[in-house]
Amino acid sequence: MQDKDWFTHSIPPPDQQSGEAALERQATLTKPAGSLGRIEALAVHLAAMQSALRPQSKPLGIAVFAGDHGVAKEGISAFPPEVTAQMVLNFLGGGAAISVLAKRAKAQLCIVNAGTTRQDGYPEPVIDRPVGYGTRNFLEESAMTMQETLAALVLGRSVMDEYLTQCQIVVGGEMGIGNTACASALAAALGVAAVSDLVGPGTGLDEQGVFHKQSVIEKSLARIGDQPDPLRILTELGGYEVAALAGFYIRAAMLGITIIIDGFISSVAALVACKLNPDTRAWMLFSHTSQEPGHACVLQALQADPLLSLGMRLGEGSGAAIAYDLVDAACELHNKMATFDEAGVSDRD
Amino acid sequence: MQDKDWFTHSIPPPDQQSGEAALERQATLTKPAGSLGRIEALAVHLAAMQSALRPQSKPLGIAVFAGDHGVAKEGISAFPPEVTAQMVLNFLGGGAAISVLAKRAKAQLCIVNAGTTRQDGYPEPVIDRPVGYGTRNFLEESAMTMQETLAALVLGRSVMDEYLTQCQIVVGGEMGIGNTACASALAAALGVAAVSDLVGPGTGLDEQGVFHKQSVIEKSLARIGDQPDPLRILTELGGYEVAALAGFYIRAAMLGITIIIDGFISSVAALVACKLNPDTRAWMLFSHTSQEPGHACVLQALQADPLLSLGMRLGEGSGAAIAYDLVDAACELHNKMATFDEAGVSDRD
Repeated sequence: MQDKDWFTHSIPPPDQQSGEAALERQATLTKPAGSLGRIEALAVHLAAMQSALRPQSKPLGIAVFAGDHGVAKEGISAFPPEVTAQMVLNFLGGGAAISVLAKRAKAQLCIVNAGTTRQDGYPEPVIDRPVGYGTRNFLEESAMTMQETLAALVLGRSVMDEYLTQCQIVVGGEMGIGNTACASALAAALGVAAVSDLVGPGTGLDEQGVFHKQSVIEKSLARIGDQPDPLRILTELGGYEVAALAGFYIRAAMLGITIIIDGFISSVAALVACKLNPDTRAWMLFSHTSQEPGHACVLQALQADPLLSLGMRLGEGSGAAIAYDLVDAACELHNKMATFDEAGVSDRD
Repeated sequence: MQDKDWFTHSIPPPDQQSGEAALERQATLTKPAGSLGRIEALAVHLAAMQSALRPQSKPLGIAVFAGDHGVAKEGISAFPPEVTAQMVLNFLGGGAAISVLAKRAKAQLCIVNAGTTRQDGYPEPVIDRPVGYGTRNFLEESAMTMQETLAALVLGRSVMDEYLTQCQIVVGGEMGIGNTACASALAAALGVAAVSDLVGPGTGLDEQGVFHKQSVIEKSLARIGDQPDPLRILTELGGYEVAALAGFYIRAAMLGITIIIDGFISSVAALVACKLNPDTRAWMLFSHTSQEPGHACVLQALQADPLLSLGMRLGEGSGAAIAYDLVDAACELHNKMATFDEAGVSDRD
């Protein structure tokens, strides 16, 4: 696609009629109406997204985008930056949380180098298409160029188009030392809340570390000034993996594929996607409320009410992969339960 | 066993050393320490219960106990009493929610007639051992005899012993038109809260129906008077399936098998089990907070903080079977993730 504005194209909403038909089916199944709560609502939502009376949860596709952040050199993470590349190899080796969860869910797992600092490449099957070798330090200068931003959005789109079009559901995950700082800065610049409400310990900063992180982000936002354009904000603050996730989400929505959003950073990428293209929102399910304190504000900005709240804060798509089980159970129940008529069970008086 | 007091025998607690070893292992896995939140805690808890560094989630066993309630003739349910027996046949036919969920989890499903009104038996493989043909109406008289109570407890024990001893995890479920009334009355008599806080719509009563149900329960409790003995309370109020569940839970704990507790009625059965034998509590995980309003009070009395809150209120063990996925994911992650050393990933600075 040569169309530079591809990500702004309008996206048709889920099919309300299919949703209504699915809701009618739910009312005939052998249980008190509504007694499966949000599990029923999930099946109905999925039916609308798939324009099908009996929605499918399989196959699941997971794409994890990795990128490094120049701002990491400001000491805003509990882990050193080389961990990003090491974790990409761990995804590949099967030892990371998302590797285990992807295998468990029989999902196709795409590991994408969107721009880590490692210069000597990754073995197959890593999708090794770095937009750059780590973003620039947004405390001092724009993290990305506009060209890089557009390239990262296209990378997300390409992963969707080349690997996951046959999926009924996709999860996007991320890995990047420093990316809670990036996500907090993005959320603040996009007007979600004050920096102090959006900054947390990430991978494990202590109180002083959080305070320093907050100060770095505040200085960075002062450098940028008020900026109304989300694409410009994304360019100023990065990162490659966040922009790629946003492109991935928008493309999934364009293809009518359900997206399960993971935690803090993924939700900020979802917010970026929705700012670039508000039609994307209707294709998103939200998996969990992260322990990272800023997540609640971002969820509120997205008017999202996640399925789980288990104190998770790992990223990689792990929370979304865990919540996928609920979506899978919802489809199985919706499709396989007997109706009152089929089972010869008396409906309510 | 001829021992009439079998259910009061002391039960050793889970093995704290194994829990501590599992916690140490969690700290070595390639993720920020604690970043999987309650998923990590589940694995650690399971390790302690199984005295194993690497706990297993399989096989899962599910036993659904069905029973009818004499109090149903007071018009305290939205569904007619014949639905209990019809649903037993639906469990057997595979069309009920718990049938679908059991198959999905590759669980062994035991369907137990603990005492429905149907007199002409059930086909195999229903475990057809009715303690009676529906309890008596507790508004007018004791729902069960003490002999029936003891027999129902033994029934739960026998199902555990004869069918599910090889399981790592068990779920108890229930089916019985009128059993939210029974459970609300039990919880009130056991001192959990006032009747008005414990009565709800069950399968779907309207406001007037709930008010009537509350009045029936209040009159019944006035008939019984203050009663300190939980076994006596259980006998007065029933039901066969609730007593069988309590016996099932106690026996599972004695065998060192993890129990996942379902919703309102199952939690009241769990409370009864804990009143009869407080050692049982340490072997219980709580799956979800039901939409049935009394559940929160019962959970508080059990000092339980369930994993899910999805507005479910179906029973049958369905919420526990859905939460089982979290336990399964917890074990997989705990056992299969790489350590920092194994993966060559740098630990935090």
